[in-house]
Amino acid sequence: MLQIVKPTMLIDKEICLNNIRKMAEKACRLNLKFRPHFKTHQSAQVGEWFRESGVETITVSSVQMARYFRDHGWKDITIAFPVNILEIDEINRLAMETGLNLLVDNEVSLSFLKAKIAAPVGIYFETDTGHHRSGIEVADFRKIDQMLQYLKNDRNLVFKGFLSHSGHNYAARSVEEIAVNHSGVVERMNSLKCHYLPAYPGVEISLGDTPACSVCDNWEGVDEIRPGNFIFYDLMQYHLGVCKPGDIAAKVICPVVSKSDVRSEAVIYGGAIHLSKEFLMGRNGERTYGSIVRKDFESTGKAFPDELYVSGLSQEHGIIRGPSRWIAEMEIGELLEVVPVHSCLAADLAGNYLTTSGEVIAKMGK
Amino acid sequence: MLQIVKPTMLIDKEICLNNIRKMAEKACRLNLKFRPHFKTHQSAQVGEWFRESGVETITVSSVQMARYFRDHGWKDITIAFPVNILEIDEINRLAMETGLNLLVDNEVSLSFLKAKIAAPVGIYFETDTGHHRSGIEVADFRKIDQMLQYLKNDRNLVFKGFLSHSGHNYAARSVEEIAVNHSGVVERMNSLKCHYLPAYPGVEISLGDTPACSVCDNWEGVDEIRPGNFIFYDLMQYHLGVCKPGDIAAKVICPVVSKSDVRSEAVIYGGAIHLSKEFLMGRNGERTYGSIVRKDFESTGKAFPDELYVSGLSQEHGIIRGPSRWIAEMEIGELLEVVPVHSCLAADLAGNYLTTSGEVIAKMGK
Repeated sequence: MLQIVKPTMLIDKEICLNNIRKMAEKACRLNLKFRPHFKTHQSAQVGEWFRESGVETITVSSVQMARYFRDHGWKDITIAFPVNILEIDEINRLAMETGLNLLVDNEVSLSFLKAKIAAPVGIYFETDTGHHRSGIEVADFRKIDQMLQYLKNDRNLVFKGFLSHSGHNYAARSVEEIAVNHSGVVERMNSLKCHYLPAYPGVEISLGDTPACSVCDNWEGVDEIRPGNFIFYDLMQYHLGVCKPGDIAAKVICPVVSKSDVRSEAVIYGGAIHLSKEFLMGRNGERTYGSIVRKDFESTGKAFPDELYVSGLSQEHGIIRGPSRWIAEMEIGELLEVVPVHSCLAADLAGNYLTTSGEVIAKMGK
Repeated sequence: MLQIVKPTMLIDKEICLNNIRKMAEKACRLNLKFRPHFKTHQSAQVGEWFRESGVETITVSSVQMARYFRDHGWKDITIAFPVNILEIDEINRLAMETGLNLLVDNEVSLSFLKAKIAAPVGIYFETDTGHHRSGIEVADFRKIDQMLQYLKNDRNLVFKGFLSHSGHNYAARSVEEIAVNHSGVVERMNSLKCHYLPAYPGVEISLGDTPACSVCDNWEGVDEIRPGNFIFYDLMQYHLGVCKPGDIAAKVICPVVSKSDVRSEAVIYGGAIHLSKEFLMGRNGERTYGSIVRKDFESTGKAFPDELYVSGLSQEHGIIRGPSRWIAEMEIGELLEVVPVHSCLAADLAGNYLTTSGEVIAKMGK
């Protein structure tokens, strides 16, 4: 392994390129615009890997991230987060420099934008199709009609269509459940599209969480997908059945610093500030903050066994629990490969990435 | 409020100074060396506030952090993390430039240090007094004796004493439970000290989690305390009974971007990458990722009511749940003050801090 001495996010560029290519091909085959979410990697260099696959339109999750990618040459950006009206000055600067789409789910934000926006932007209405986080209720035609009134004859606010994030797919327990969720979402979004198509002939539907984009094939009536996590995937996606071990491109490499044979535990330098406190509930009813790769398992296709996992995290410590003989085999100073539960959060915590071929990849600063 | 437009960690310098002064005075009164843990704030500027209270010795949690504070003039630093032998080169550079103490809990690391260390360092043996994360079992005299053999007549490895972190105090359910835990820890550490004092007359005991340092008065035989969190405190410490609302110096200020009257929820711009996914279990059995300050509650001494809380986090979204009339009162674009569950992790996620008087405070980069 490379000269790694402290917790490091190691990414496999070949796997990333493969994940990008597969998703780009799927979008092409299904006639969907591919607008990948760049919040997962937050890196201009990784962005270039998408560009090489023909991607020119992207999604980000904040105004700051839109600025970062605009400054790295991206000119068609959707900020897929309910517009934060306090950032209107920077939004206006961006709108003058790049093609910008904003997300709105309420009249207050929309009327504020109507009064303050200084250049043309696309407007998507965020709709809630089951995630219940933000968004207009899909069936709330009265509210949608009222909001459309604000846009009527406005020079700068250009209605693009309806956007939804099926975040509830992350809580699904099987690929089948994702498929059922997704079909419901597609159906509800199409009911909206059909309703507004006569008056708004160009109205679009934008969807696209990683689980549905990875495993579903029913995209009838959908115009655009916005998956993000799929470039790296992670333990959560693996447990959902959405990816295979070999699709996971990002791992956090952590040195072993302590061991307890009595408790059958090891301690790694790698804690909450490297992996994040996102966890899954293991089959044993315990929290899992990450899985450990064991090379000798690769031939079985089960590269990271359930029994060997990160059972706890402090700020910089990670506790590894597992069968006593596996713990016994670990050596102080050994580097463990930890598969993070949620790669987006682990990637956010990394200062930069290291590729398996030794390239340091810069990312957006805090 | 100041010109805040996006998630910002706001710190009240007066409260910080007061928290520092109280802890410094307590250490002085009890004749304890005060070696505060700087992992909480990770800021050279905040470090200066300690220096003004007479602090010259500090604790950090990584080699990188030791380097950062050394470069900002600190010359007596304990890295309170099991030594990571892979970082020996940087450890040696530090050891030549500053007074450095290292933590060891196993013979492999110790023999490695014996072979490779290039300048004098203090060595603390980490002992496990109930947290069960790392450290030698307190009663394992055989192992301690063996490890002491490595240090015998070594020019560079200078045995300082025993260090423990009572992390189990963070899981206590009351101040009384903390006091009971702490008395047990003090007793066990003193049994070690008494055992080794004849052969090692200068042997020290170093303790010091924020809960015990804040509320306990029994420090018989202890030489040094290393609390860190107390400079900011947080919701966890408040729920433990360790601090009052007015002692909490750090809040994350977040704009409201969406609301749902149907679900009695609001959405803030402020997610897992601002607050961390650390949570407490609320009395209603739901996870709480933060509490919201309501100014009108201040007079009652209950500045952040239990009923109004961060119930969920995505990467950049926070969901606020609460009584419908309080949610109804919130306005899109309003700034909410969120009391983080664990200020160390929220502070780690911040790019910098803003003080209530408008000063931007830089911190260590990733």
